[in-house]
Amino acid sequence: MAGSVLENIQSVLQKTWVREFLAEFLSTYVLMVFGLGSVAHMVLGERLGSYLGVNLGFGFGVTMGIHVAGGISGAHMNAAVTFTNCALGRMAWKKFPIYVLGQFLGSFLAAATTYLIFYGAINHYAGGELLVTGPKSTANIFATYLPEHMTLWRGFVDEVFVTGMLQLCIFAITDKLNSPALQGTEPLMIGILVCVLGVSLGMNTGYAINPSRDLPPRFFTFIAGWGKKVFSAGNNWWWVPVVAPLLGAYLGGIVYLGLIHAGIPPQGS
Amino acid sequence: MAGSVLENIQSVLQKTWVREFLAEFLSTYVLMVFGLGSVAHMVLGERLGSYLGVNLGFGFGVTMGIHVAGGISGAHMNAAVTFTNCALGRMAWKKFPIYVLGQFLGSFLAAATTYLIFYGAINHYAGGELLVTGPKSTANIFATYLPEHMTLWRGFVDEVFVTGMLQLCIFAITDKLNSPALQGTEPLMIGILVCVLGVSLGMNTGYAINPSRDLPPRFFTFIAGWGKKVFSAGNNWWWVPVVAPLLGAYLGGIVYLGLIHAGIPPQGS
Amino acid sequence: MAGSVLENIQSVLQKTWVREFLAEFLSTYVLMVFGLGSVAHMVLGERLGSYLGVNLGFGFGVTMGIHVAGGISGAHMNAAVTFTNCALGRMAWKKFPIYVLGQFLGSFLAAATTYLIFYGAINHYAGGELLVTGPKSTANIFATYLPEHMTLWRGFVDEVFVTGMLQLCIFAITDKLNSPALQGTEPLMIGILVCVLGVSLGMNTGYAINPSRDLPPRFFTFIAGWGKKVFSAGNNWWWVPVVAPLLGAYLGGIVYLGLIHAGIPPQGS
Amino acid sequence: MAGSVLENIQSVLQKTWVREFLAEFLSTYVLMVFGLGSVAHMVLGERLGSYLGVNLGFGFGVTMGIHVAGGISGAHMNAAVTFTNCALGRMAWKKFPIYVLGQFLGSFLAAATTYLIFYGAINHYAGGELLVTGPKSTANIFATYLPEHMTLWRGFVDEVFVTGMLQLCIFAITDKLNSPALQGTEPLMIGILVCVLGVSLGMNTGYAINPSRDLPPRFFTFIAGWGKKVFSAGNNWWWVPVVAPLLGAYLGGIVYLGLIHAGIPPQGS
Repeated sequence: MAGSVLENIQSVLQKTWVREFLAEFLSTYVLMVFGLGSVAHMVLGERLGSYLGVNLGFGFGVTMGIHVAGGISGAHMNAAVTFTNCALGRMAWKKFPIYVLGQFLGSFLAAATTYLIFYGAINHYAGGELLVTGPKSTANIFATYLPEHMTLWRGFVDEVFVTGMLQLCIFAITDKLNSPALQGTEPLMIGILVCVLGVSLGMNTGYAINPSRDLPPRFFTFIAGWGKKVFSAGNNWWWVPVVAPLLGAYLGGIVYLGLIHAGIPPQGS
Repeated sequence: MAGSVLENIQSVLQKTWVREFLAEFLSTYVLMVFGLGSVAHMVLGERLGSYLGVNLGFGFGVTMGIHVAGGISGAHMNAAVTFTNCALGRMAWKKFPIYVLGQFLGSFLAAATTYLIFYGAINHYAGGELLVTGPKSTANIFATYLPEHMTLWRGFVDEVFVTGMLQLCIFAITDKLNSPALQGTEPLMIGILVCVLGVSLGMNTGYAINPSRDLPPRFFTFIAGWGKKVFSAGNNWWWVPVVAPLLGAYLGGIVYLGLIHAGIPPQGS
Repeated sequence: MAGSVLENIQSVLQKTWVREFLAEFLSTYVLMVFGLGSVAHMVLGERLGSYLGVNLGFGFGVTMGIHVAGGISGAHMNAAVTFTNCALGRMAWKKFPIYVLGQFLGSFLAAATTYLIFYGAINHYAGGELLVTGPKSTANIFATYLPEHMTLWRGFVDEVFVTGMLQLCIFAITDKLNSPALQGTEPLMIGILVCVLGVSLGMNTGYAINPSRDLPPRFFTFIAGWGKKVFSAGNNWWWVPVVAPLLGAYLGGIVYLGLIHAGIPPQGS
Repeated sequence: MAGSVLENIQSVLQKTWVREFLAEFLSTYVLMVFGLGSVAHMVLGERLGSYLGVNLGFGFGVTMGIHVAGGISGAHMNAAVTFTNCALGRMAWKKFPIYVLGQFLGSFLAAATTYLIFYGAINHYAGGELLVTGPKSTANIFATYLPEHMTLWRGFVDEVFVTGMLQLCIFAITDKLNSPALQGTEPLMIGILVCVLGVSLGMNTGYAINPSRDLPPRFFTFIAGWGKKVFSAGNNWWWVPVVAPLLGAYLGGIVYLGLIHAGIPPQGS
């Protein structure tokens, strides 16, 4: 009896959509735990954190996420990457909600975990208050906020552009007919890509470049006590990291495919 | 005569349990020399050390340890990893004490070596005193101590969680049916994993995540002159990095196997 | 009809010189966006940027550029490298203008993009002024300028030497008869090379080591409002990063080929 | 005629000892240019240098040196490594002077090059004086000097130990019967090893761990104007980085071979 229950569970787990959902869920969870944790170090940790640490946390968090799910779902961990794959016909649209739901749940759970793990440090840092703006704000551990000298529309353009660079380079790194990363080293190289995106292009918007990275943790802070200011801050900034990356990833993908990949003869050069 | 003595020694060395004991001993020694040395730089070295240096020291110390012992014993260097392998039936329980004894001896000897090598700098730093707490403490070079804003049980949960992330990602990096690291690059990738665990999740407890990393050096400081406060500090913190990682590694392993690996059809997807 | 237009476009894209032009264009664009962005972080970003960040930005920018164009054009992204390949008979001279034009256009466009993306931060930093010298200068985000203790001719020698090290090591990393990087990891290793060139040899001139990196962004700042001082500053420094790298790359290539490669028997050793 | 002269030159270059001499010469030159340059950044460059930069400079300098000479001479670049290979019977003693002479000439020439390239910055830093001790000393760009709290004999033990770790890990990384680095990635992994040796074990003596790294540049500073104090400083410290690494590398090699390699059955395990 117990054996047949286990077999039933296993047969469910082996359904493709269940496997892909769980893969996107767990890989996004892993990415976000590393990413949000590194921001917590920068915000709360004094000498124990830095912006370079944040770049490493998100970068190699992506690396670990790809190891967790790359062979199952492709380890998108990013609704903009999933959107681009569907829009370019590389993946069926019917998978889109399954992927994104997995990503959003993983990201939300990672935000909750980060709050649990850093609960003592967050309280110690801001005297028990949960602030969205000002020098003692902690909402920026979870989601991105615009610096003061930026405007909403400049931020929109920035998020489109940086996500475009992300997708363009992912297509290059994995293009078997060009100069791809050695098989089995793609997780490392895409991690380095995400790291250097932060090093070089992160300061204007905090480089969300991923709806699944930004929206669920922001929603978590909303319900966990930071309040509705997490949505209203920065001229209602919250929707930009959700919409702009979709456009950016699609455009970046098109640029690579149009300028480089389209010119490669079918059999390779 | 001499030849036959040498042959006898060699035949002893080739016994599986002797080889595995020596492999765990030397690899843990190498890991801990790099790890503790990097902490010594942060504590004693002013501009010559940093928290990022500690992350690199333990991370690439693991890398070097895997090169030293990976082909012989699997290079666990961590009693929690050994425990999980036994508990999941991947290794016989009778090997457990041999592995852990090798790890503990290597770790203890590494602590002694670190004290010898940094003896001058330790004395120079604290005026010859061996302190466990306060701004001139040096016991934290060898073992982990809780920061003031943490409680014992929050630290326990943290150590369970971070060790879980370690084991989960090790299983992912080495899963031949998913998206593994290229053969021969696992030492590098597991080193990067340990590095980013520190970058993103280290600040709350000092990320012992390994009984073999924490207990033997703590015992060394006890007998070398830091006194029994090394055990009593932080509400008797010492037992948490011994017990919590066992539970965490097991849970992290289960999560990966249950959510991801169990869904992969036997022949690969 | 539409189909035949698309076919015509594709047949143009598949012409070798068009493919190589586009490959050099896009790879140089990618390199320069990462490189200039990282300098913008150091100049404008306070705790969000550093010189190590600049080294990483240019280094792994090169890595990404090689992934974008390595299989099409070889991903030179550097007129000095293209010059050396032509001068050593490894590539036809008739390709030289196509390659360099692609590089220059990509670099110019990257400078314009960087200005667009960092427009708010640049204005915020210097109160709306576009300065070439002094503590609030921003022209140094785009092109290199000599520090005060350097002379033009010392700078010339420096640029010759550092570019020589670049070309020497590129030949070594890709020499199939010696100890080359594993196929598929050359982008990573050449990126590490460029990173460490900055770490170890960058401070005297800002390590342009590449006419395509320095001249087009300088020209961009000239027309974008920084004025003709971008050419006159530093005793007319602007021509040195254009001319010296050509000489340096050629000499560095010759040294490797003469001292090492020439001694390898034709069939390998 | 010209052709036959060229052929004669080539036939000389193809003699094994000439090739090995030139390979050790050029690889050591490359290593030392990267290494000394990174120290120059730390000493002279304010925000442009750091101790982590020095670790990266020597580490990835080794990586580049191995690409330059690995297929010809094995790219020792270190008289202690050459000594150990001879003492363990892996290489004929008659090659020892050729290897070491090549290394010493390359290292001396790299010191001269570093002085030339950083001449302006060195003069700017110390007002034209060439000092061996004190806050404005520049001799430490070229060779190692003991910090004040160290004694000569503690420094000797430190250099023995750290060089032992170097050789032990090199043997592990390249042991085909254990868990070696993937072929073609050894230059990267040995570079990471040297980097982390500095991060974790460098602060007590400056981690010369190599006679070819320390003595020739020290001799260069002696004749270039820093004077005989470069030898007398630190209780005549100069001979320790020459002698101690020989002993250390030999012992480290023995430990790996005796504890790990000797236990591997001849056919692999």
